[in-house]
Amino acid sequence: MPRYRLDIEYDGRFYAGWQRQADLPTVQEAIEKAILAFTGETVTIRGAGRTDAGVHATGQVAHVDLGRDWRADKVQGALNAHLSLAGEYVSALAVEKVADDFDARFSATARHYLYVILNRRAPAALLRGNVWHVPRRLDADAMHAAAQRLLGRHDFTTFRSVQCQSDSPVKTLDRLDVTRAGDLVEIRASARSFLHNQVRSMVGSLKRVGDGGWSGDDLEAALKAANRARCGQVAPADGLYLVKVDYRDATPNL
Amino acid sequence: MPRYRLDIEYDGRFYAGWQRQADLPTVQEAIEKAILAFTGETVTIRGAGRTDAGVHATGQVAHVDLGRDWRADKVQGALNAHLSLAGEYVSALAVEKVADDFDARFSATARHYLYVILNRRAPAALLRGNVWHVPRRLDADAMHAAAQRLLGRHDFTTFRSVQCQSDSPVKTLDRLDVTRAGDLVEIRASARSFLHNQVRSMVGSLKRVGDGGWSGDDLEAALKAANRARCGQVAPADGLYLVKVDYRDATPNL
Repeated sequence: MPRYRLDIEYDGRFYAGWQRQADLPTVQEAIEKAILAFTGETVTIRGAGRTDAGVHATGQVAHVDLGRDWRADKVQGALNAHLSLAGEYVSALAVEKVADDFDARFSATARHYLYVILNRRAPAALLRGNVWHVPRRLDADAMHAAAQRLLGRHDFTTFRSVQCQSDSPVKTLDRLDVTRAGDLVEIRASARSFLHNQVRSMVGSLKRVGDGGWSGDDLEAALKAANRARCGQVAPADGLYLVKVDYRDATPNL
Repeated sequence: MPRYRLDIEYDGRFYAGWQRQADLPTVQEAIEKAILAFTGETVTIRGAGRTDAGVHATGQVAHVDLGRDWRADKVQGALNAHLSLAGEYVSALAVEKVADDFDARFSATARHYLYVILNRRAPAALLRGNVWHVPRRLDADAMHAAAQRLLGRHDFTTFRSVQCQSDSPVKTLDRLDVTRAGDLVEIRASARSFLHNQVRSMVGSLKRVGDGGWSGDDLEAALKAANRARCGQVAPADGLYLVKVDYRDATPNL
């Protein structure tokens, strides 16, 4: 059975997250239904990141095994045709055949997220649901400086959802950059893997630094407390994008 | 009666255009309802550009006269609060008091539009409804070179909707730039005023140049024919944004 890697973009506003649920629309279900429509096969796909309700992706990666040896570009064309027909806000950016041992989730060596804050007085109209609207002016430089204190290997319990199913709260954060581009404050976070709600919890806490409520020392103290109660606000899903997933070897074209 | 200038952003996907219609949601109605909600006044606002169904704006300008002398920042705050409450995809970016002779439509000296083409194989997911998806690779340089032939004062009948109500088909086009930014091809058009569907008609014809169907000479011949039947495809509303309106004098803060 040939295995395919799917690179996926979606608008999380229209989905209750990546992972299939009984009675709610999910990205996984949208893709599996589109595959069923052109292959006749009921498949289960696995994604690199199980994004929450409302979270977007420009670079989600999934894999699927198909019973027939389709050409990769045919899979992409048919998948997109059926996604469009169904009115889904999901698009297959690329499809390629990969080795049998490629696993979108377990082979991933790094995940990259972008969080976008619309930092202006007026609420979002064009970007409504795709950004977090923060009216009060944020100091992006102060946020960036404070963010550097979270880099490295730490117990991230403070920034972990109580529903997190990870075995350990210890993770290594490789990048947490904050930059301003006009009215947008963009936060880029990279790690091998993240705890549940970790990016949104860090962003909510950094926002507190940005509006002057917290110092960099306060942020570091919150991390070191390893206590969920010390987390700042959890930023809404609206501004979060899974933008890229890395794999050890470039996935070979078979 | 104090007069206010409103700078407006909206997502055209959710509206049957700017101008009020009997049974369809419009941007004008959304704003007039929000003003009614906090002033108790039934007002009529006038916009600089009467954008069509599905067309967006990041810099629409309108004016309104109010019976009471509200502070401009209070008008902005109340307007946005009521637009949010009503679930509208409309936001007041700025509000200022202006002189009685300021007219958003008739005082305008230039209008600037942006048209965005998503030029990649995969359909839009995050930008669905906000771009025109053209799968076939476009030559943006060829489009730009051809576009320069449309600059200046011409009879633009070829690029004019049959429903256009303008007295004359003669307009002066000041700018028509085509640039590529990754998968996006962006077309920027500026003029004192445009005919109905002029930007979308020019974009659809430029797309034909971009995919090799037309040469620059073909485009110029279509213009010179002054014949609507010679127009290329009319580009869909999805990719069009009214981004800026100029006025002779900077509108003074009263």
